[in-house]
Amino acid sequence: MLTDMYELTMLRAALADGTAQRRCVFEVFTRRLPSWRRFGVFAGVGRLLELIDGFRFTESDIAYLLRAGIIDEATATYLSAYRFTGTIRGLAEGEIYFPDTPLMTVEGTFAEAVVLETLILSVLNFDSAVAAAASRMTAAAGARPCLDMGARRTHEAAAVAAARAAVVAGFAGTSNLAAGKLWDIPTIGTAAHAFTLLHDDEQQAFDSQVRTLGRDTTLLVDTYDIPEAVRRAVAAAGDELGAVRIDSGDLGILAAQVREILDQLGANETKITVTSDLDEYAIAALAAAPVDSFGVGTRLVTGSGAPTCSMVYKLVARSDDSGDMVPVAKRSAGKPSLGGYKRLLRQFSDAGVATNDLVLVGDEPSVRAAQAPAGSRDLHVIHIDGGQIVSANRGVAGLARAAQRHRMSRGELPLTALRLSSGEPAVPVTHAQAEPI
Amino acid sequence: MLTDMYELTMLRAALADGTAQRRCVFEVFTRRLPSWRRFGVFAGVGRLLELIDGFRFTESDIAYLLRAGIIDEATATYLSAYRFTGTIRGLAEGEIYFPDTPLMTVEGTFAEAVVLETLILSVLNFDSAVAAAASRMTAAAGARPCLDMGARRTHEAAAVAAARAAVVAGFAGTSNLAAGKLWDIPTIGTAAHAFTLLHDDEQQAFDSQVRTLGRDTTLLVDTYDIPEAVRRAVAAAGDELGAVRIDSGDLGILAAQVREILDQLGANETKITVTSDLDEYAIAALAAAPVDSFGVGTRLVTGSGAPTCSMVYKLVARSDDSGDMVPVAKRSAGKPSLGGYKRLLRQFSDAGVATNDLVLVGDEPSVRAAQAPAGSRDLHVIHIDGGQIVSANRGVAGLARAAQRHRMSRGELPLTALRLSSGEPAVPVTHAQAEPI
Repeated sequence: MLTDMYELTMLRAALADGTAQRRCVFEVFTRRLPSWRRFGVFAGVGRLLELIDGFRFTESDIAYLLRAGIIDEATATYLSAYRFTGTIRGLAEGEIYFPDTPLMTVEGTFAEAVVLETLILSVLNFDSAVAAAASRMTAAAGARPCLDMGARRTHEAAAVAAARAAVVAGFAGTSNLAAGKLWDIPTIGTAAHAFTLLHDDEQQAFDSQVRTLGRDTTLLVDTYDIPEAVRRAVAAAGDELGAVRIDSGDLGILAAQVREILDQLGANETKITVTSDLDEYAIAALAAAPVDSFGVGTRLVTGSGAPTCSMVYKLVARSDDSGDMVPVAKRSAGKPSLGGYKRLLRQFSDAGVATNDLVLVGDEPSVRAAQAPAGSRDLHVIHIDGGQIVSANRGVAGLARAAQRHRMSRGELPLTALRLSSGEPAVPVTHAQAEPI
Repeated sequence: MLTDMYELTMLRAALADGTAQRRCVFEVFTRRLPSWRRFGVFAGVGRLLELIDGFRFTESDIAYLLRAGIIDEATATYLSAYRFTGTIRGLAEGEIYFPDTPLMTVEGTFAEAVVLETLILSVLNFDSAVAAAASRMTAAAGARPCLDMGARRTHEAAAVAAARAAVVAGFAGTSNLAAGKLWDIPTIGTAAHAFTLLHDDEQQAFDSQVRTLGRDTTLLVDTYDIPEAVRRAVAAAGDELGAVRIDSGDLGILAAQVREILDQLGANETKITVTSDLDEYAIAALAAAPVDSFGVGTRLVTGSGAPTCSMVYKLVARSDDSGDMVPVAKRSAGKPSLGGYKRLLRQFSDAGVATNDLVLVGDEPSVRAAQAPAGSRDLHVIHIDGGQIVSANRGVAGLARAAQRHRMSRGELPLTALRLSSGEPAVPVTHAQAEPI
């Protein structure tokens, strides 16, 4: 039922007029990146596959749809037996993408493909928005780990997906326990200001935390006076203190002060983590500060200014009465689509740097050359084949593969891709007609 | 498990040192509105109540938490019997709010209240962000209905919550079937461009749609040429055609053109709905255009530039060893909190216009005067009393009450509140020490 009503009314009309069984190719693409981004990150695939696999209409759903007059009996019969049996191709999860390229295609009957529009777009639009923001943060942080602490800043279920998407783009852990359990992501977190305030004084709070969580815990030092708190923290845990966390103020200046105090007290191994309103720019600005890790909240889970990716799901080809596939496209002002099957090749310089994304229009998967030409990589892989999940991005292992793919894919970009300033996409996109083979 | 790890590590340390049973008051508030907003809309209460009521840790959750070393046996024992038994007060859902005022308080033991932080903030931050955006849209639209079509632009579960939050702020319907079923919200939607492209030509598509969905359906007219499509639409349905939808181009100019063609063809009753990248500003700009309803997507579900509300959950009072309640506050730079119980009164002019929000600090609910002083309204109601939901915002009826409350609360604001331009909060906030009674 994670479906827009028009999908079912279209299905109803198409079942009635016989077009519901036409073979269709729907394509996911976006017309633009946010103006300040030089690349997108394709994320959400692993999550989406499970959702498509389990996509059903329950008896209760169908009763509601009939009662509300949204569907008729023929549509009810179709939906009650619904199961996606088509084929889904697209980028591997974690792959870098650019506008106006085919990110995913869904092939099947009109009936089975049309009802997946909302689900597919919701998952990919949200997860990719978070991953794109996360990737700029991990790039800015370099070798220092970034940690997701954003659960409280977005819808409670979106938070779980955000934690996963952040890992795709290089985050090292999350505060979110549901995400930790579901995707086997390392979890982090020790105490909030409330723990200090709960106790009669700060020293009692620190002593208690160290007693229970161990000397290698992280103590939060900005409830009252930071230098004083750092001294209390070392008094509580000694020089084995794991870390201190600073959650307010000018983080660069404070980190330097705190480092100095820690070192004076002999706590040279104690780390400093910072967590206040960070984004990729704030992280970059802390490049020279003695900060050991970054906890990122709001700006991660809200896509750092771009909470969605504007991906759309458009019919690009369908069979006619004779069974032949016909490219189709709309011509809406400012929002045209480009019909036909498409192949997507990333082309590289001799040094292995991505130089162009080539969209080959009209290249049917069944008749295309299996191998990508030398100096290029075919970006499309098969995720679902005849209704069966065959994707490498499934499950916990699939998430690790997505993170690996992202590291590789980002590593192939020209260096300018990692600039935080506004600019054009890091790699141009060209279109060509596929040659018949 | 929609919980941040630090909540459980704090719980663990507090159980070990005996402070877990201290009575606590946590307060939800925000330090700011987005710079371009003059009021906030409190939303998500009805959803939150059910989530708190069902908040449990399963055996599988606890096994994971033990295995991951996050909790110890004592904490496991506590969590396996968890059930919130405290009291939650706060604004009624739909109420207008301003920064630095207590929006909700959670009273209970530290143990039972601390673990709800993330859940409470996730729900309120997301739903209130959508409702605040929605309220500006419905204000700009005046008597013309606004309809949610944003499901595809946010996380699939967030979309369901967004549809509900939009209704709180005056939206008339949603495209989202899960939201329609769950909250009894009217659903809308007929066809996408794919339906036209699926057919051999536009006329066949329109004829088919009218045959199945009736003459009062809405036909999408911008797949190819709009004037031509409008003529085809009337050819298909006659002058009983319900509506046409325009999804691209300059909507004001196109709506006028389409209205003229419809009227020429005698379809004077046929409505025009528009749906392309609308937000409150675009809706306001269409004030003089012959548009009958607005379908809003991306900008609604992403909070129109502010996808979260920066609400925080801070300990403001707790009992000491003698059982007395003590106000507590942190002093973090730029992020201080204000300790103590608080009462929130909205004060009105003789004409019934809201003039001030007065925060009475130190006003314990158990000893406060029951009645708000003349010319003011006590904004806090009881949502959960001793673990039992007593809120008027529960369920389907609660959603209708929230929408009603929002209309009333917005209607009390000074007229400047509805300006779309940037500016200060529409109503000032003052703080005073409560007088002992």
